[in-house]
Amino acid sequence: MKGNLFVVSGPSGVGKGTVCKAYVEKHPEVYLSISATTRNPRAGDADGVTYYFINEEQFRSGIAKDAFLEHAVYCGNYYGTPKEPVMKHLEAGGDVILEIESDGAMHIRSHFPEAVFIFVCPPSLEELKRRLEGRDTETPEEIQARLEKAKSEFPRAKKYNYMLMNDDVAAAVRRLEAIIDAEKCYMPRNIEFINKEFLK
Amino acid sequence: MKGNLFVVSGPSGVGKGTVCKAYVEKHPEVYLSISATTRNPRAGDADGVTYYFINEEQFRSGIAKDAFLEHAVYCGNYYGTPKEPVMKHLEAGGDVILEIESDGAMHIRSHFPEAVFIFVCPPSLEELKRRLEGRDTETPEEIQARLEKAKSEFPRAKKYNYMLMNDDVAAAVRRLEAIIDAEKCYMPRNIEFINKEFLK
Repeated sequence: MKGNLFVVSGPSGVGKGTVCKAYVEKHPEVYLSISATTRNPRAGDADGVTYYFINEEQFRSGIAKDAFLEHAVYCGNYYGTPKEPVMKHLEAGGDVILEIESDGAMHIRSHFPEAVFIFVCPPSLEELKRRLEGRDTETPEEIQARLEKAKSEFPRAKKYNYMLMNDDVAAAVRRLEAIIDAEKCYMPRNIEFINKEFLK
Repeated sequence: MKGNLFVVSGPSGVGKGTVCKAYVEKHPEVYLSISATTRNPRAGDADGVTYYFINEEQFRSGIAKDAFLEHAVYCGNYYGTPKEPVMKHLEAGGDVILEIESDGAMHIRSHFPEAVFIFVCPPSLEELKRRLEGRDTETPEEIQARLEKAKSEFPRAKKYNYMLMNDDVAAAVRRLEAIIDAEKCYMPRNIEFINKEFLK
């Protein structure tokens, strides 16, 4: 694996998708993984852009072939990260971002300990609640359920390498840029160069 | 300690002083520590700017009072990092950079394990030799001695957190910016915030 793998996770409503998309718009050389799902496309969805839309048989066949880095079921639908494009970019020396749920992140961690785990964090629970309410796509009960789920994710934050504060999208993108650039300098990723160039 | 302590080291001639000075010119809120020394001021030196020039009695008294974070003797002269201004900036929440020799860096590491250790690296040994020769302030024998000493420092590089490639000063400053900004996001430095805000 020549490129670096960044796994971005965090509670629902924190804005992790917005931050990742804004990052790759500025840095198109970084590959933002596109998930596969069995859920039906909604308005605004485009196959191969927001998701790869496949049916349950295709998804199950993918699982059987070990074609997903991680997968999970939410609300009766499958979601998964196709392995092949991710590995292809990494092998070619490119960086890859996975924006996934924390269960998937913990699964990736057990297989790719050298990956970098980033937990996107709201400034406060009150602000997270405001953002969930502002989306206007969920009922008050759904919002409450998401908020309770969000609360349950914070104890897991400590297992991540970085906390990415999303108080402001532009500031959060700058923090993500710093993390991705700093990780290139991280000594364990440079030992091979030092050995080859200076300790031969 | 509320701010972060960055210890920048690397072989003689690699340009670590140039990179650190360029960084704090762009980021004057970060304190670049000024060493104390017993050596005589040279052309271009200014007391309290390039060094604090003190006599040997003052230096020995400082050592006795534990006034230095680290100190060493080079070519018969004492060099040391005054503790008080560093601790003052850190306690006030500011970041501090120490640009010191690797012996001093390893000493700091044993006392401040939470500090961040950055090893400045040339693109190649050949380029380091060219830079040492280009300084035009040393004899060929001195250059050879410095190059041998430089070579002896590379095995220690692995004890640092980051490798900062200095192929180009502007690029190296950008890498240092990324490291300093990313370290603010490093999870262990944010556990207290997460505990207080989300896990109370």
